[in-house]
Amino acid sequence: MCLCQSYGMTLLDSSSSASVATDGHVEARFGNRAPRLHPQWLREQSTEPGQIEATNRQRLFTPLDVDPGLVAVDAELHGDALTVAFSDGHRCRLSVAALMQRLGWVADPEAPPAPIAWEPGAAPFPTVFWPAIAGELDEPGVAEATVDFLGDFARHGFVIIRDTPTTEGTVAEVANHIGYIAGNNFGWVFDVRNKPKPTDLAYTAIELKPHTDQPYRKVQPGLQLLHCLANESDGGDSVLVDGLAATEAMCREQPDLLEALTTIEVDFRYDMGTDVAIDRRPVVQLDSAGRFRQLRFNTKLDFPVPADGADLDAWYA
Amino acid sequence: MCLCQSYGMTLLDSSSSASVATDGHVEARFGNRAPRLHPQWLREQSTEPGQIEATNRQRLFTPLDVDPGLVAVDAELHGDALTVAFSDGHRCRLSVAALMQRLGWVADPEAPPAPIAWEPGAAPFPTVFWPAIAGELDEPGVAEATVDFLGDFARHGFVIIRDTPTTEGTVAEVANHIGYIAGNNFGWVFDVRNKPKPTDLAYTAIELKPHTDQPYRKVQPGLQLLHCLANESDGGDSVLVDGLAATEAMCREQPDLLEALTTIEVDFRYDMGTDVAIDRRPVVQLDSAGRFRQLRFNTKLDFPVPADGADLDAWYA
Repeated sequence: MCLCQSYGMTLLDSSSSASVATDGHVEARFGNRAPRLHPQWLREQSTEPGQIEATNRQRLFTPLDVDPGLVAVDAELHGDALTVAFSDGHRCRLSVAALMQRLGWVADPEAPPAPIAWEPGAAPFPTVFWPAIAGELDEPGVAEATVDFLGDFARHGFVIIRDTPTTEGTVAEVANHIGYIAGNNFGWVFDVRNKPKPTDLAYTAIELKPHTDQPYRKVQPGLQLLHCLANESDGGDSVLVDGLAATEAMCREQPDLLEALTTIEVDFRYDMGTDVAIDRRPVVQLDSAGRFRQLRFNTKLDFPVPADGADLDAWYA
Repeated sequence: MCLCQSYGMTLLDSSSSASVATDGHVEARFGNRAPRLHPQWLREQSTEPGQIEATNRQRLFTPLDVDPGLVAVDAELHGDALTVAFSDGHRCRLSVAALMQRLGWVADPEAPPAPIAWEPGAAPFPTVFWPAIAGELDEPGVAEATVDFLGDFARHGFVIIRDTPTTEGTVAEVANHIGYIAGNNFGWVFDVRNKPKPTDLAYTAIELKPHTDQPYRKVQPGLQLLHCLANESDGGDSVLVDGLAATEAMCREQPDLLEALTTIEVDFRYDMGTDVAIDRRPVVQLDSAGRFRQLRFNTKLDFPVPADGADLDAWYA
């Protein structure tokens, strides 16, 4: 397992080539990569007229419309284009850059910026000023400020929004400006208050250690906003922890312990008195390429489920 | 891989026992199961006074509060209770039924009913009448009708709601009654209409084959409502397909092809002209016990990403 695996662009060089194998697959060579490309897969990438809808670029045909015995009969590579002719008479010109993206070798340029783990002495917290993003996207500067703000959020996992009004409801106004609030059992907005019958520890004065919110939901909050209107307590510093940096540090220093966190499933269980929300996931989820996808962490609500015969020594180490 | 694996209740019998191993783990025997239980894990299940908050049952301590060298010093099993004494002086009485649930051997009674795959000649579509669930939960019969409705949805994956008004906005009213609408780029409600510049094939008269909606989102719609106000077309039967039944049939008849659908990741990609939404997942997701979790299927938007050196023969078979 390696979190640091990078997917660099494979540059085309003079050794790039394409030919058709006897079984109708295309044997391509893009620089130092030599994939064997399935004819149906290549056929599905076609963007020739009639193959995709013009406005939304969605495919107009389905697998049932394609001859199951389809093969490639000719393939040529010139510059950035792979041209393929098929046994059904179709011929298409495919962009090598697009193919590399489809094969997962290069990042999709439409993807948000990759996350960057925090380091000691890292740059100050990213900041945006609410008036700069509060307007319509066609007002001068608003689109640019919004892209900067969302880019910072994707890279660093948080952004401080300054100059918001300290009136109730502002947090919902800010959230609805950015996207759509997802409601839940707490309603549209959660008021952090000290309550006599606390249905959640967040309604008490108990110190909450670092955690991720709502790990007991199939869908954890994606972008979460906190807005402090009034602080009547002494002390109580807010602590932020970067789950990506913690995971990468574990990967370097204690890979066997990280292995336990990626494989042992945990019941995150929230009993709200009238009903219960549960989701079962590992604490750290990696994608199939071993890259960090997401983290669930809450030491008040977690019940690891050991596999039959397995022990939890690595979990509790 | 087996989708049909069942997790029956393990009944306690006279061979049930518990003892403490030399390393402080508890060696329990519940009927025919003999788990080795970690002392920290057992300590975290404690519901004795002071260990959990009374109203919300959330744990009051964290791993940092527990001696890392904690061991069990005594364990006894009587009837449905396992009593454990720990080296930190704590002593707790744990319900065996709750432990079995925590170990994943029996379903959580708070979990929704398990899904049932459709079979040829299955019972008629489950139906609910809108007036029966439209009221407040404390009105007579409303809570029962709502539980029946949601139970049918969990079991069968769909329910027909009859007697809804044919006025615009009803679908949002029904949705907000059940939970919270999740908005997206289409807004809060998607109007299926024929549009001149279709940003989605659903805005065209093109026949749409069976698919799941929005597979390009990290979060697919959970419970989706369709409401037909007026039908100005001839023909166009609606077709429903049960993804669970299809997956189980593949598991029985072509397990190697199902394997391809559970392991090959797919970029589901929706280009809406101004921006793009992408999520990369396998078509069929199973949980760690091999049980069906979810399905993404859309032959207009799917771009399988073969692993390096792997071929897509099984995918296209």
